[in-house]
Amino acid sequence: MQIPSEMRQWVLASRPNGLATEQDFRLETVPVPRPGPGEVLVRTQYLGVAPVMLRYMTNSTDFEKDLEIGDVMHGRGVGLVVQSNNPRWQPGDLVYARLRWREYAQFDDDPYYIPMRMAHPDLKWSYGVGTLGNNGFTALVGIRDIGRLAPGDRVLVSGAAGGVGSNCAFVAKALGASKVVGIAGGSAKCELLTNRLSYDAAIDYKTDGVEAAVDEHFPDGVDVFFDNVGGELLDQVMARIRRRARIVICGRISEYLKDPADYHRHRNLYRIGLMDAKLEGFFVDDYRAQYPELEGVLADWIRAGQLEPYEDVMEGLEQMPAALIGLYDGTNSGVRVVRIDPTADQRS
Amino acid sequence: MQIPSEMRQWVLASRPNGLATEQDFRLETVPVPRPGPGEVLVRTQYLGVAPVMLRYMTNSTDFEKDLEIGDVMHGRGVGLVVQSNNPRWQPGDLVYARLRWREYAQFDDDPYYIPMRMAHPDLKWSYGVGTLGNNGFTALVGIRDIGRLAPGDRVLVSGAAGGVGSNCAFVAKALGASKVVGIAGGSAKCELLTNRLSYDAAIDYKTDGVEAAVDEHFPDGVDVFFDNVGGELLDQVMARIRRRARIVICGRISEYLKDPADYHRHRNLYRIGLMDAKLEGFFVDDYRAQYPELEGVLADWIRAGQLEPYEDVMEGLEQMPAALIGLYDGTNSGVRVVRIDPTADQRS
Repeated sequence: MQIPSEMRQWVLASRPNGLATEQDFRLETVPVPRPGPGEVLVRTQYLGVAPVMLRYMTNSTDFEKDLEIGDVMHGRGVGLVVQSNNPRWQPGDLVYARLRWREYAQFDDDPYYIPMRMAHPDLKWSYGVGTLGNNGFTALVGIRDIGRLAPGDRVLVSGAAGGVGSNCAFVAKALGASKVVGIAGGSAKCELLTNRLSYDAAIDYKTDGVEAAVDEHFPDGVDVFFDNVGGELLDQVMARIRRRARIVICGRISEYLKDPADYHRHRNLYRIGLMDAKLEGFFVDDYRAQYPELEGVLADWIRAGQLEPYEDVMEGLEQMPAALIGLYDGTNSGVRVVRIDPTADQRS
Repeated sequence: MQIPSEMRQWVLASRPNGLATEQDFRLETVPVPRPGPGEVLVRTQYLGVAPVMLRYMTNSTDFEKDLEIGDVMHGRGVGLVVQSNNPRWQPGDLVYARLRWREYAQFDDDPYYIPMRMAHPDLKWSYGVGTLGNNGFTALVGIRDIGRLAPGDRVLVSGAAGGVGSNCAFVAKALGASKVVGIAGGSAKCELLTNRLSYDAAIDYKTDGVEAAVDEHFPDGVDVFFDNVGGELLDQVMARIRRRARIVICGRISEYLKDPADYHRHRNLYRIGLMDAKLEGFFVDDYRAQYPELEGVLADWIRAGQLEPYEDVMEGLEQMPAALIGLYDGTNSGVRVVRIDPTADQRS
């Protein structure tokens, strides 16, 4: 494979105050890195985007290294090894790693890079940043391990049409849930939930009264609430949990653009104690040792037709800022991935 | 043993609005019950009291049967079998069960009564309603199983001088905690925490600034918070948790006398998600299958001197209303038990 001398990458140009704009990023052309001893060079195939990436821009997470202005944006993706100084990797290998927003990336075996071989290259490569990556792992760990879903449980998911949420009903059903209801915004997303994403019913938070709708779908309360939204919605659902319910805190998209002083103040937290329930956050990276097992379970479900990943594929590195910013405008459905290499999925 | 023909019992006279008064109870003299087929008659030795019992009076729990006006108050205690129509029990056996507030009680093998043989009658019988009963089981399940205490963890306990809290530092230390700090009200209780109850330090919520004191004792944050108080205190501690902290919701005494509309609204719930932490309530009755194991662990610690139960023994059935009401005046320290039989602890 011919390796060009130059490539493009996105760097942080300024720190956003609230939602980012395209002006907060700058596209640069730089030399393709040369892999050092023990390093490999990969050509980026797909990059993922997730709401939390906005917080990388203000150094507001403790799981990505702080970014200086001018640093390449953090991001994880699927790469194809094109050059290797590391006996563990051969050209042609597919790998999932912290690649950042660039067309080529080099890395070594440092666990920081999460260098993980894609074990199911027969499936679509993009799944490595979606259902066979953080989105799917998050759904499976959240529902199975944190949510301890038991057969027959009644499950509610917020942000149900999003990257993680679009996997949740499939996962919950595969594990034996008797009912899975999703919350999303707008009739198009709600139709998607029931027609394509395996949800039994949908609640449109823009037009339905959420409290009355949850009461209607869960007259005896919710066993597992998988929450991507936080804030007032979480408060409304805490009032509607069954005994020993599990609330899985996956995301808090309603809060990411707000100052903590402006967050909703929860009046129903007492119900966690009253109902002997649990509310738990988790970080999928902490489950790294389980990734091969998680990937295997999800790949098996995909092959068996029990899990049908729903992707929202954007084309080209130049789309990265728009792909991220667009996660906040409420229009995205499914796992948003950006195809960086136009020849992705073609075996050389 | 001579069984008298009559006994005393406390019945619900009226439903309290907020804190109960002695007028909400009525002491009656009634015939001693005669055990039916399969039943045993026990003489009540000790009864326990706990803040939650106030809620039995308004039928505000789902784990005790609703009480009508005139019904005998719910309560659990240690009884000595004096008559048996059940091959499982012999006169002289010690049993822990739902005995209610009365001098004699009959029950059968229905699990509702929790008929549990006291496995360590060589230790003080009163421990059966304290450290070898719900108080100790709650501390052990909460810290070990819900709190998943790991060696080296830094532990904070609220209501630390109370019935459950007085066991918590012993339990946490036995499990390897590196530091255990208790919150209580008043200098006498705080001295008790450090001088007698194995706490490394005490925070007096009446005079110390709780937030600054927690910051001082836990500069890197709290790993396990065992909470008996709820409300604003819980909010303050949520702001001071470490990554993957566990908040164990044992009780919410700050809320039991309030209307839910007046509960504190929590501003820091988002930190559970942000810190990949957990907040979990539990009900010790759900761990009934583990009681023998729990009792064995605690009894071993008592015999080894690692756990020194601290009891607040009141004398006589007539004290029951005062014993319960007094739990809300802030003066009680240790496990409050009421000795019903003056000859308790004397083997016949």
